[in-house]
Amino acid sequence: MNAIGVITLTTDFGLSDPYVGTMKGVILSIHPEAVVVDISHQIKAGSILHAAGVIQEAYPFFPKGTVHVGVIDPGVGGQRRPILLMTEDHFFVGPDNGLFWPLVRPHQPPKIIHLTETKYFLPRLSYTFHGRDIFAPVAAHLCRGVDPSKMGQIITDPVPLHRPRPREKGNILVGEVVRVDHFGNLVTNIGQENLARFLGSARPSIKVKNLMIEGLRKTYASVPAGEPLALIGSSNYLEIAVNLGRASDRLQSDTEEIIGTKVEVAKT
Amino acid sequence: MNAIGVITLTTDFGLSDPYVGTMKGVILSIHPEAVVVDISHQIKAGSILHAAGVIQEAYPFFPKGTVHVGVIDPGVGGQRRPILLMTEDHFFVGPDNGLFWPLVRPHQPPKIIHLTETKYFLPRLSYTFHGRDIFAPVAAHLCRGVDPSKMGQIITDPVPLHRPRPREKGNILVGEVVRVDHFGNLVTNIGQENLARFLGSARPSIKVKNLMIEGLRKTYASVPAGEPLALIGSSNYLEIAVNLGRASDRLQSDTEEIIGTKVEVAKT
Amino acid sequence: MNAIGVITLTTDFGLSDPYVGTMKGVILSIHPEAVVVDISHQIKAGSILHAAGVIQEAYPFFPKGTVHVGVIDPGVGGQRRPILLMTEDHFFVGPDNGLFWPLVRPHQPPKIIHLTETKYFLPRLSYTFHGRDIFAPVAAHLCRGVDPSKMGQIITDPVPLHRPRPREKGNILVGEVVRVDHFGNLVTNIGQENLARFLGSARPSIKVKNLMIEGLRKTYASVPAGEPLALIGSSNYLEIAVNLGRASDRLQSDTEEIIGTKVEVAKT
Repeated sequence: MNAIGVITLTTDFGLSDPYVGTMKGVILSIHPEAVVVDISHQIKAGSILHAAGVIQEAYPFFPKGTVHVGVIDPGVGGQRRPILLMTEDHFFVGPDNGLFWPLVRPHQPPKIIHLTETKYFLPRLSYTFHGRDIFAPVAAHLCRGVDPSKMGQIITDPVPLHRPRPREKGNILVGEVVRVDHFGNLVTNIGQENLARFLGSARPSIKVKNLMIEGLRKTYASVPAGEPLALIGSSNYLEIAVNLGRASDRLQSDTEEIIGTKVEVAKT
Repeated sequence: MNAIGVITLTTDFGLSDPYVGTMKGVILSIHPEAVVVDISHQIKAGSILHAAGVIQEAYPFFPKGTVHVGVIDPGVGGQRRPILLMTEDHFFVGPDNGLFWPLVRPHQPPKIIHLTETKYFLPRLSYTFHGRDIFAPVAAHLCRGVDPSKMGQIITDPVPLHRPRPREKGNILVGEVVRVDHFGNLVTNIGQENLARFLGSARPSIKVKNLMIEGLRKTYASVPAGEPLALIGSSNYLEIAVNLGRASDRLQSDTEEIIGTKVEVAKT
Repeated sequence: MNAIGVITLTTDFGLSDPYVGTMKGVILSIHPEAVVVDISHQIKAGSILHAAGVIQEAYPFFPKGTVHVGVIDPGVGGQRRPILLMTEDHFFVGPDNGLFWPLVRPHQPPKIIHLTETKYFLPRLSYTFHGRDIFAPVAAHLCRGVDPSKMGQIITDPVPLHRPRPREKGNILVGEVVRVDHFGNLVTNIGQENLARFLGSARPSIKVKNLMIEGLRKTYASVPAGEPLALIGSSNYLEIAVNLGRASDRLQSDTEEIIGTKVEVAKT
C-alpha cells in the first residue's frame, strides 16, 4: 500500500488558535500536492475515547492509502511514543496512547512503527506540539513516498484503550452512551449485530434514565415532532433521538454527565 | 454545462462529529480531484429557511459548474425525494424540501431530477445519513462527468419554501429579520431595490423593537462606536448593526426570538 | 519571489455565515488551482491584536510564496487603505490597520503596496465586505502571477499596532497575558530569549493573580493532574497551564478580562 496524498486531521485543538493551520502549513511545505481534510478539531479536550470513536467511524469512507493524523495528546513531550500504524488499507499517525486501538484487530494485527527517525520531523522539536513537529511532517513524508520502515522500529505492544462493552445482565442488555452528537442524539455502544443477536424475534424496550422507548424505528420522522425514539444510527449503533428535538435535553441529567449513562434494553 | 470539480457543502451537522469529514471521504473516494469547500456547517438544526438563504447568498460567487450540496434534512429516510437541480450555471444536490426553492425562478425554471438511480449512491443506504450515502456520491459522480439524465427522472413539482416577503402597510414598509450574523448584525428581508422603490427620494426612519434609526449609512464606522445604524449589507439587503458592537444584544428580546422580528421602515 | 498558489485566511467571520465560503468561491473563480487553507475564523470580533498574533505565529510554517489574507476590518469602507505587504518569503493582503505590523521589521522593511488598481477587485464593490470584494480577488490574482507593482503604489507609512512589551521593574520582569488558547492555557508576551536573559542562572518564580508557580517545566505532564505549571510554549513564549485542566478557570477573574492580566516573574 502507498500513501495517496490525502491526509485527515482529528484533534482537540479547536479552531480559534493557529494550531490547526500551522499543521497544514507544515504539511504543504513538505508535500505541496497533499489534500488535507479535517475530520474534527472539536474533540473534547484530552478525550482519547471520543477521538478514537470519531476516527473509527470516519476513516473507512476515505480512499485506500489515506493518512489519518490524530492529535489528542495529553502526554506530549513525555515518555509516550509517537507511532505510525498501518492497516491493510490506511495509515494512522499519532501518539501511542490508545487513540488507534480500535484499529488493532487480533485476527489481522496492523504493523506499528515507533517513529524515531528525526529526519522526518521538523528540525526543531518542541515539548508541547508534536502535531506540528512530528505527526504532520511524518504524514507529509509518507505521502511523498518515504518507506515506513525507514521511519523507526516495529513494535508489537501498543497502548490499549479501555472501551466499555455492552453486557447481558439477566434478561437485560446493558450498554452506555458514548457520544452526544451535534443534534443531541445519544449514540450508544450497542452495535446493530449485538442487538439483533440479543433480541432474536423480540421487540426492544429501551430505558435511558427517565426516557422509556418501545420498539425500534427506521427514521427520525417516524414519530411525531418532539417524541423520543430509538433507531440504528448511521454508524450502525443503537441511538436515542427526539424527532426535531434534542434527546440530550430530555434526560434529567446535566450534559457533562451524559457520556457513560446506562442504556438498558429489555425484550418485550 | 459540465461540473468542474468544485463541490460546496452546507449542512447543519456542526463540526464536532465525524459527519462532515465522512462526506468528504466519500467524495474523494469517488473523485480524487474534487475540491471541496465548506460554506457552513453551523446552520441552525433543521432550519431549511436559514440554509436556503446562506446557499442563495454564497453560490453566485463560485465558478460556473460548481456542485452545491445542501444537507438540512429533517425528513431523511422518509418520503421526501433526493434531487439534483440545475440552473444555467450551477448544480444543487440535496433533499426536496424547499432548500433550493430560491433558485427556482419562474421565468427561467431550472431542470430538476429526482435522483433514483442507485448506482450513483453508496452501495449500502442508511435511513438517517443521506448526505453521506446519496448526496455526496451523486455530487462526486457529477464531477466525474456522469450525465444528469442518467441519474433519475425529471420532475416539475419541487417542494416550495415559504419565505416571508416585505409588504407595504399604509405608509410603512414592513419586513422582518431573517438572520443574525456572527457580528450580531440583523439581516432583513428588505432588498435594496425594494427599499429604493419604496423610499423614492425620501429618507428612511427604521424601527426594530426598541431600536430607532434615522437614515441609511454606507459603513459601520460612519457612526460613533456603540451607536446603532442601518445600511445595505454585502448581500444587498437592509441590515441593522451597531458600530463595534452587536445589534442583537441591543434588542430587548432574547436571541432565539430575534429571527422573525418585525422591521418597519417609514419615509421622513 | 512568486506566489505559489497557497492562500491562507484569517478572519473574525466565524463559521455560521456565508462569508468565508464566499471568499473561497471568489478565489476559485479567479484561480481554480488555488489551495485555500483556514488559519482561523474565530478571531475575537474586531481584535487586530489577537489576529496579528495568530498570523505571526502560523505564517512561518507555510511554504515560501504563500499569500496570507487577513480580514479583521472594523474600518471597512472608510479611509483605511487596502494593502499588500511583502516580506522576503511571504505575501500578506488585508486592511492597513496594524494587522501585519509584526511583519514590519526595521532592519528589513517589507515592501508595502497600497492596493488601488480596481481591475484586480470584484467589479462591484460593497462598503462592508472587502474580504470578498478586494482581498480575496487580489490574493487570487497574485497567485495567477500578476506583478504586485501593477496593483498600486508603494507606501512607507503603514499603520502601526501598539503591542504591550514586557518590562523590568526592579527585580521583576512584568509581562501580560496576550491569548487564552482553546485549552485554557495563558499565553504571555514574555519570549523565551527575553526570559533567559532576565533570569541568567536564576530560577523563576511566577505570579499571575492568585496563581503562584515555581520554576519552569518542559511538559504539561511533568506535574500532577490539576496542578498549575509554567513552560515555554510551542510559539516560544512563556505559558501558564494546568496539567489536564484549564489555567483560565483557575484565575480568580472572569474570562473576558484575562487578556491583559499582569504576569510577574521574579528570580529565586
